[in-house]
Amino acid sequence: MNQKTNADGFISVDDIRGQLLKVADRLHKSFKENFGAETIEKYVFESFDLLDAKSEVKVYLPSLTERFARERLQALLKAQNLHDHDAFDILFVCVHNSGRSQMAAGFMSKLGGERVVVRSAGSAPKESISPEVVEAMAEVGIDISQEFPKPLTDEVVRGSDAVITMGCGDACPIYPGKRYEDWTLDDPAGQGLESVRVIRDEIRKRVETLLADLINN
Amino acid sequence: MNQKTNADGFISVDDIRGQLLKVADRLHKSFKENFGAETIEKYVFESFDLLDAKSEVKVYLPSLTERFARERLQALLKAQNLHDHDAFDILFVCVHNSGRSQMAAGFMSKLGGERVVVRSAGSAPKESISPEVVEAMAEVGIDISQEFPKPLTDEVVRGSDAVITMGCGDACPIYPGKRYEDWTLDDPAGQGLESVRVIRDEIRKRVETLLADLINN
Repeated sequence: MNQKTNADGFISVDDIRGQLLKVADRLHKSFKENFGAETIEKYVFESFDLLDAKSEVKVYLPSLTERFARERLQALLKAQNLHDHDAFDILFVCVHNSGRSQMAAGFMSKLGGERVVVRSAGSAPKESISPEVVEAMAEVGIDISQEFPKPLTDEVVRGSDAVITMGCGDACPIYPGKRYEDWTLDDPAGQGLESVRVIRDEIRKRVETLLADLINN
Repeated sequence: MNQKTNADGFISVDDIRGQLLKVADRLHKSFKENFGAETIEKYVFESFDLLDAKSEVKVYLPSLTERFARERLQALLKAQNLHDHDAFDILFVCVHNSGRSQMAAGFMSKLGGERVVVRSAGSAPKESISPEVVEAMAEVGIDISQEFPKPLTDEVVRGSDAVITMGCGDACPIYPGKRYEDWTLDDPAGQGLESVRVIRDEIRKRVETLLADLINN
C-alpha cells in the first residue's frame, strides 16, 4: 500500500503494470493447482480494466484488483466444480452495488458464517459505497467500509447457488439449477440515514429468511 | 477516499484535522445517545495519534482512525454495560497484531458469525499485516487484507468477555470476571507461506475449541 503517487494521487501506467504482475504472481501461488499462469494473468488484467472503467481513484486500484480477481477465480473454481465445499455460494446483485446488495452481503456474511460464501455485484456499479449505508451497517456492528462496487461478471453468476437481484432488471444472465429471487426494496441512493435504516432492517429480515430456507432445504 | 496528496503521498495537517472532525461528526450520529461530542472527539483524536505513532502511510490514516475509534467506542459501550447484547466479545492479542491475532480474529469472525464480536490488538503493533498471512487466510476464503495492526487500549480489554493472548507476555492488564487464555504458537513473522499455513491451521483448531467452549458454558 506504500506506493508513491504524483501530485494528483495517480501512479504511472508502468508502475500499475508492474503491480498487476505481482498481483498475478501472488494469485498464482493460491490457484496454480487449477489454473495456468496465463489464465490468472488474464483475469487480473481484465479485472483491473473492469474496475478502472468505473473508478477515478487509480491509487487504490491494484489492491482492489487483487481482491476482485481473487473472488472471480474462486467463483470460477466453483463454477467448474473444481472446488467442492459444503457452503452455499450466494450472490447479491443490484444496480450500483453501492447500497442494497452491499447491505445484504454484509448481513449474509455475518449471519451465515462459514455456511456461506457471499459475493455482490452491480449491473452498473458506482464509484464507491454510499456513506449512509456504511454508517447504517456500522450501527449494527457490521463493517462494510472496505467493500467496493464491482461489476457483474459471468463466472460469479455461474459460481453461485443462489442469485438475489434487487431491481437490476434483466441484466442477470440466467443459468439452470440455481435459485433465483428478486427482492423489491427501496433504493437507499441519495436518502438520509433514517431512511437507510428502514431499508437495512428490511434487508436483514429477508436475509434471515433466505438463510433459514437454504439451510433447511 | 478521494483526497489530494502531495508528491510523497502525504496530506497536510490542516486537512487531517478537518477530516478527523468529520469522522467525529459521523461517529456522533451513531453514539450520541450514550456519549457526548467531547468524548467522541477525544477518542477520535487519540485514536489517530495512536495509529500515527506506528504508521508511515499518512494518507490512509483518517479512514483507519474512523474504524479504530468506532471499535473503541463500541467496546466502551460494552465495558460500561450500556450495550447489552447476547454476543460474546472476544479479544485476540499478540505482539505485532500483524499475524497470529489477525488470523485468530478472522477465523473467529467467520466461524462465530453473529454469536461473537471480535477485536484484535498488539502490544507493539507493526505497520501492516504480513502479506503471507493475508495470502494464507485468503486460501481458506477469509479476506483480512483490509485489517490493520492496532495498539492495545484499555476499553477494548474491559469490553471483552474473553481475552486470548499469544505471546504478548504480561502486557495485558487483567480484569476480574473475564476468561483469559494464553496460546503458545509459533510467530509467523518472517516465515514463508508453507510455515504460515501450519500456524494458520493450528489457530483454526484452537478457535473452534474456544468457540464451542464459549457456546456450551
